[in-house]
Amino acid sequence: MPATMKALRKVRTDKGLEIQTVPVPAIGPTDVLVRVKATSICGTDLHIYGWDRWSQGRIKPPVTLGHEFCGVVESVGAEVAAVRPGDFVSAEMHVNCGHCHQCRLGEAHICQNLRIIGIDIDGAFAEFVKIPATNIWKLDAAIPEHYGAILDPLGNAVHTVLAGAIAGQTVLVTGCGPIGLMSVAVAKACGSSTVYATETNEHRRVMAKEMGADFVLNPAAEDVVKKILEATGGTGVDVLLEMSGHPAAIQQGFKTLRAGGRASLLGIPTETVPLDLVQDVIFKGATVQGIYGRRMYGTWVQMTALLKAGRVHLEPLFGERVALENFEAAFAKLQSGLAGKILMYPNGISR
Amino acid sequence: MPATMKALRKVRTDKGLEIQTVPVPAIGPTDVLVRVKATSICGTDLHIYGWDRWSQGRIKPPVTLGHEFCGVVESVGAEVAAVRPGDFVSAEMHVNCGHCHQCRLGEAHICQNLRIIGIDIDGAFAEFVKIPATNIWKLDAAIPEHYGAILDPLGNAVHTVLAGAIAGQTVLVTGCGPIGLMSVAVAKACGSSTVYATETNEHRRVMAKEMGADFVLNPAAEDVVKKILEATGGTGVDVLLEMSGHPAAIQQGFKTLRAGGRASLLGIPTETVPLDLVQDVIFKGATVQGIYGRRMYGTWVQMTALLKAGRVHLEPLFGERVALENFEAAFAKLQSGLAGKILMYPNGISR
Amino acid sequence: MPATMKALRKVRTDKGLEIQTVPVPAIGPTDVLVRVKATSICGTDLHIYGWDRWSQGRIKPPVTLGHEFCGVVESVGAEVAAVRPGDFVSAEMHVNCGHCHQCRLGEAHICQNLRIIGIDIDGAFAEFVKIPATNIWKLDAAIPEHYGAILDPLGNAVHTVLAGAIAGQTVLVTGCGPIGLMSVAVAKACGSSTVYATETNEHRRVMAKEMGADFVLNPAAEDVVKKILEATGGTGVDVLLEMSGHPAAIQQGFKTLRAGGRASLLGIPTETVPLDLVQDVIFKGATVQGIYGRRMYGTWVQMTALLKAGRVHLEPLFGERVALENFEAAFAKLQSGLAGKILMYPNGISR
Amino acid sequence: MPATMKALRKVRTDKGLEIQTVPVPAIGPTDVLVRVKATSICGTDLHIYGWDRWSQGRIKPPVTLGHEFCGVVESVGAEVAAVRPGDFVSAEMHVNCGHCHQCRLGEAHICQNLRIIGIDIDGAFAEFVKIPATNIWKLDAAIPEHYGAILDPLGNAVHTVLAGAIAGQTVLVTGCGPIGLMSVAVAKACGSSTVYATETNEHRRVMAKEMGADFVLNPAAEDVVKKILEATGGTGVDVLLEMSGHPAAIQQGFKTLRAGGRASLLGIPTETVPLDLVQDVIFKGATVQGIYGRRMYGTWVQMTALLKAGRVHLEPLFGERVALENFEAAFAKLQSGLAGKILMYPNGISR
Repeated sequence: MPATMKALRKVRTDKGLEIQTVPVPAIGPTDVLVRVKATSICGTDLHIYGWDRWSQGRIKPPVTLGHEFCGVVESVGAEVAAVRPGDFVSAEMHVNCGHCHQCRLGEAHICQNLRIIGIDIDGAFAEFVKIPATNIWKLDAAIPEHYGAILDPLGNAVHTVLAGAIAGQTVLVTGCGPIGLMSVAVAKACGSSTVYATETNEHRRVMAKEMGADFVLNPAAEDVVKKILEATGGTGVDVLLEMSGHPAAIQQGFKTLRAGGRASLLGIPTETVPLDLVQDVIFKGATVQGIYGRRMYGTWVQMTALLKAGRVHLEPLFGERVALENFEAAFAKLQSGLAGKILMYPNGISR
Repeated sequence: MPATMKALRKVRTDKGLEIQTVPVPAIGPTDVLVRVKATSICGTDLHIYGWDRWSQGRIKPPVTLGHEFCGVVESVGAEVAAVRPGDFVSAEMHVNCGHCHQCRLGEAHICQNLRIIGIDIDGAFAEFVKIPATNIWKLDAAIPEHYGAILDPLGNAVHTVLAGAIAGQTVLVTGCGPIGLMSVAVAKACGSSTVYATETNEHRRVMAKEMGADFVLNPAAEDVVKKILEATGGTGVDVLLEMSGHPAAIQQGFKTLRAGGRASLLGIPTETVPLDLVQDVIFKGATVQGIYGRRMYGTWVQMTALLKAGRVHLEPLFGERVALENFEAAFAKLQSGLAGKILMYPNGISR
Repeated sequence: MPATMKALRKVRTDKGLEIQTVPVPAIGPTDVLVRVKATSICGTDLHIYGWDRWSQGRIKPPVTLGHEFCGVVESVGAEVAAVRPGDFVSAEMHVNCGHCHQCRLGEAHICQNLRIIGIDIDGAFAEFVKIPATNIWKLDAAIPEHYGAILDPLGNAVHTVLAGAIAGQTVLVTGCGPIGLMSVAVAKACGSSTVYATETNEHRRVMAKEMGADFVLNPAAEDVVKKILEATGGTGVDVLLEMSGHPAAIQQGFKTLRAGGRASLLGIPTETVPLDLVQDVIFKGATVQGIYGRRMYGTWVQMTALLKAGRVHLEPLFGERVALENFEAAFAKLQSGLAGKILMYPNGISR
Repeated sequence: MPATMKALRKVRTDKGLEIQTVPVPAIGPTDVLVRVKATSICGTDLHIYGWDRWSQGRIKPPVTLGHEFCGVVESVGAEVAAVRPGDFVSAEMHVNCGHCHQCRLGEAHICQNLRIIGIDIDGAFAEFVKIPATNIWKLDAAIPEHYGAILDPLGNAVHTVLAGAIAGQTVLVTGCGPIGLMSVAVAKACGSSTVYATETNEHRRVMAKEMGADFVLNPAAEDVVKKILEATGGTGVDVLLEMSGHPAAIQQGFKTLRAGGRASLLGIPTETVPLDLVQDVIFKGATVQGIYGRRMYGTWVQMTALLKAGRVHLEPLFGERVALENFEAAFAKLQSGLAGKILMYPNGISR
C-alpha cells in the first residue's frame, strides 16, 4: 500500500481544480477503503469548478471532488463483515445520520443531517476513497465497469421514474441532460407506452431518440403543450419527469400533465417558480413529488436488478475516457454543452 | 304532486338572487326527484350572489343554486332500481361523463366533462331537485338531517385528510373556514397526533379549538413557521392540509412541512403563487396533492361510515336555520365573515 | 339488418354445445349491438361444454356462450352517446350492479351482484351480441383484430402483473396456460428483471421461452424450489404470479417467495389448499392478493396502452382460426391440451 | 457500577427458569447499557418457561429472557452519539444484519439474519441489558413507565392495524389476548368505524369492551360469521386483524371478510391451516398480509406519536406488578389464562 496518492481537489476559494498528492485515507472500524477504477463527472462538479454561488456557500476547501465512481475494495475496518477486499463496488455517497426522524422512517435519502462524499467530505476523484461500510454497494460481475461509474445519476433517474406507476403510462421528460436521457431509457424499460421528450439542444434531442424516446420536441421552435395535448387526444400525459430545472419547462410540463397525473421534479430551478396551482395542481387533482438522491437502498436494488438483467441500455451516453490528470480538457468539453458522460480514471484508463 | 315550486335562482347577469316559481323538474328514466329537506350555503354560492369574475365566466342564468342538501326521494325514473321513494338521501352534485380517461380510471371526481348541479344545472335551493340515480347517496337513519345537509363540504375535508397517512401524524391546517374546521375534526377522529391550525379570524380560532385542534395560531400576530418548527423539534409537520387559498398561508405551510411530508391543497388561490420548489418540495422529497371534490364514491363511503359510527362531531359548526325565503339575511350574515354553516329550508324548518 | 342469426349455445343440461338460429338481440336505451368479428375460446367454455360440476351449478340453459371477442358496433340505444355505429370495439363482459359497496368503492370487478355475458347472459359466440354501453371498450385502429379477440384473458394477466411493483423484480409464473404465458410477456414488458416459469407440459414450456421467460422449469422433473432459491442467492423471488390452480404449484410458489414478497393468485384450485401460513406468509411478512377479472376499467386502460405502444408481443399464442360452425374441432383440439388460443369467427374468418 | 447483577434465565433444557447472579454485560463501541426499570412478560416467555417444542428448537441455554422493557441508559460505547446516559428508553429487540436483501429494501423487520434479544441473546429480565445503539428507542417523558414496558407488543398491534387503511373501516379482531386487545384500542384511536371482536374467554371479552370494541362475540356460543354478515348488510368487514392463531378463527375471519377486504395475520397457528383460497381470497380479490414484528422504525414512530398525544388508552390491560424474584407467581398467573400484562421489576417496583 502506498502512503500517498494523487487526487483532484478544490484547494482555493476560486475557479478551478488542482491535482494534489495527499495521504491515502486512514479508515476507521466501520469504514471501507476502495481503489477507484472509474469515475464520472457530474454537473455539480462543473459548478464547483466554476465556483458559482451555490459552491461558495457549500464547499469548504480543501476537498477532493468526485461522487460517481466504482472500484475494488482494498481494505476494510475491523467491524466490517459484509464487504471484503477484492469486491467490485460502487457506493451511495450521501451519508445519513441514522437517528433523525427521516432516518427512523426509512427515508434516509432526506436525512436531516446528510453529508455528501465528494462535496462535504473527500471524494472519489483520487486513487483511493474512504466510504462507510453501510454505503458500499456490491456490484454483480455482470455489470460493466463503465456502467458502475454512473450509478449515482442513473439512481436519480430510476428513483424518479419508479416514484409512481410507469407501466402503460404516457410520459413527458422535460430536459435531456444525462439524467433526463437515462430517464427515457428507464421509462421505456419499465413499460411506459409513449415517451415524449423536450430539449432545446439539438445533439441531446438526437440522443433522446437513441435512448428510446418516441417523440422529441424542441420547445424553442414548437408549441410543445399544444402538440402533446393533440397527440394525447386532449388528455395530456400521465407522468411528467421534470429534469431541466427551467421555469418555462416546468410550467409547460404542468400544462401538459393530465388531470390525476404525476409530476416528479428532479431538476433544480435557480429561482422561485410561479405556479398556477389552481389549474395545474388543485383542479387537476395532480400529485407532485420532489425527488432527491436515491432511496437508500431501494433504488440501488431496483437499478442493479435492471442492469444485471440487461433491461437498460445506456451506451449512447458514454463519451470520452480520460486519465484523471487530463481533467481540464474533460471539464472544458462538458462546459461546452456535451450531452454524454465523460469517464475519468485515477488508476489508468480501462477499456 | 304540485306542478310548480319555489326556487332560489340566479336570474340576471348581476349581483343578487331571486325567489321564483318554476316547474317541478321532469325526470328521465335514470333520474331521481328529491323533495329537499335541508340545504346549506357554500362559499361558492356567495361568489355567485356577488357575481364575481369567476361567476361571470361560469354561470349561465337563469339557474337554481344549491349543491349542499339532503332530502327524501319523491319519485324515480323507470330504470332506477337501487333508489326508492321515501329513501332519505343526499347526493354527489358533480356529474361525471362516464367515458373520459379519468372516468375509466376510477377518477370520476376529475372527469374531463364534469358538470355541477347547482352551478351548471338547476340545484337544490328549491322544493324539489332532479338528480341522476347514480349520484344519489342513501343515508342511514343514524345520520342527523343537519349533518346530511353538509356532506358536500365534509366530503371535501374527508377527501383531503384521508388522501394519505393520517394516524399518528402531526398535522397543520392552514385556514379555518368550514372545511378547515371540519378537517380538524376529521384528522383527530382518524388518529392524527398533534393538530396545529392557523387562522386570522378570532372567532374561527375559537371554533378550531372546539373542533379539537391542539394548537391554534394567528399568522397575523405570530411567526407560525418558527413556532411550529420549535414545537416539532425542528422537524416540521408530517401533513399540511391547505384550506385557505392564501399565498402567504401556502408558503408558510410549505416552510412548516417536514422533509418527506405531504401537502394536500384544497384552498383556491386567486392568483399565481410563487413557490420555492427547490427548498420546499424537491430537496424535501415532499409530496404535493391537488384535492378537488370528493372521490366518487370512496369518500362518501368513508364519510358516512365515520358519521354513522359517531366518530366526527361537528355541532359547533351549525349556526342559524332559516326558511328559503329569508335567504337575504343568511347570505348577508355569511358575507360578514361568520364561520359556521347556515341551514336553509325550502319546505319548512326542521328542528 | 337480419332478424335472426346463428349462435353457439348450451341448450341441454348435458355435455356438448349446439349451433342454433336465434333472434338478433333487441337492445334497450343504454345498450349497444355489436357485429362480432373474432372470438376466442376460454377454458371456462371447455368446462361448460363438458358440463362439469361448476357448470351444472352455474349455467342456466339455453344460453349463448362466448366472452372473448371483438367486433364493430352495429347500432346503439337512444341514450348512448359515447359509442357510435362503426366503432371497432371489445367489451368487459363482467356486468356490475353499480350500487353495492364494492361498486361504490371503485372495485366493480368484485361487485356483489356480478353477471357475466357469455355465462349468465347470451354471449359473443354469435353473429351479434348485446352489451351495456358502459361495458364497451373502444379499440384503437393500431390494435390488430386477433389481439382484440383475447383482451379478456390478457386483461387477467395485466391485472395480475400490475397488482404491485414489477419493474426490476424477479418473478415466478407458476403454470403456463394462455394467461400464464401472457403474464410472462407482460412482466417482461413492464421491466421485471428475471422471469422464472414452471410448467409440466413440454409444449407450453417451449412457448414460455418464446414469450420471454428467462428460465423455464419442469416441476415434474426438477426441484423448482431448490433451483430458484439457489439462483436467487437463497433470497427467493420478489413476485409470485400463480396461474395454475394446482395445490402443489401454489405451495412451491410460496416456498420460493422471498420474505416481503408478493403472491398474486389467479389460478383456481378445485379443492382446499393446506397452507403453511406461519412460514410462508406470517413470518415472511408476505402480501397475498386474490385476483379476479379485470379492474373496471383501469386494467383496460393499461392493457390497451401497452398494446397500442407495441410493448407486448403475443404472436406465439395464436393458433388455428376456424368458422363458428367448426367449433367441435376447435374444442376437441383445446381439450387435448393445446397451449395457444384458437380464434373462432361467426361472420367469416379474417386474415 | 456493580460487577454482577441478578437475571432471570433459562439455564437447563427443561421446564422452568432460574434467578442467577451474572456479570453485568460489557458493551462494545456501538452498544448501550441500560438499567432496566420495568419489564413485561410475553406469551413467548411462557413457552420458553414451559420448554415446548418450539423452545427446544430455538433456545440455547443459558440465556437471560425478557424482550419487553424500558429503562434508563447507564453508559454508551465510544462511537455512540445519539444516545446519552440518563436517557429514558425502550428498544427494538429484533437485531437485523443490515446487509441482506430485506435490510437494503428498508424491510429490516424481516431481515434474513434476524436475532432477538431475550431469545437468542441475553435479554431484559435483569438489572442491566446490553442493546445495540441503533435499536435504542428514546422515550418522551410524556410516556408513562408502565406503557414503556409494553411497547414491543403494542408495536405488533400498531404494525398490524396500520398495515392498510383503517379510518372509517369496519374491523374484526379475532382473539383478545394482549395484542388483540391493544389492536382494538389502536383501531378505534385511528378512526375505524365499527370494531367487532371474537374471544372464547369471558374475562377477555369484558376487557375487549373496555378497550373500545363495539361488539364482542363468543365463537364458542354464537355463529360469528352469520352475525357479522347480518350486521354489515351481508357485505362483511373491511379489515380482519387475526390475533388468535386458531385455525377456526382464521377460517371464520376469512368468511367474514368483505370482497376487496384486508386480512392482516399476526397470530401464529401451530399447524397447517386449510384455506378455501377460491372463495375466501381469489374470488374476493382479498389482500392477505403476514405481519411480523414491528417496522424498523416506522412502527415506533407511529406508536410513540399516538401515545405521546394520548390517543391510546391501555390502562385496563395492566395487572399486577411484581419484583423479578417473584417471577414464579407471575408466570403461574399468566399460565392460568389471565388476560392482562404483568409487570416485573428487576430494580425495585415503581408505582
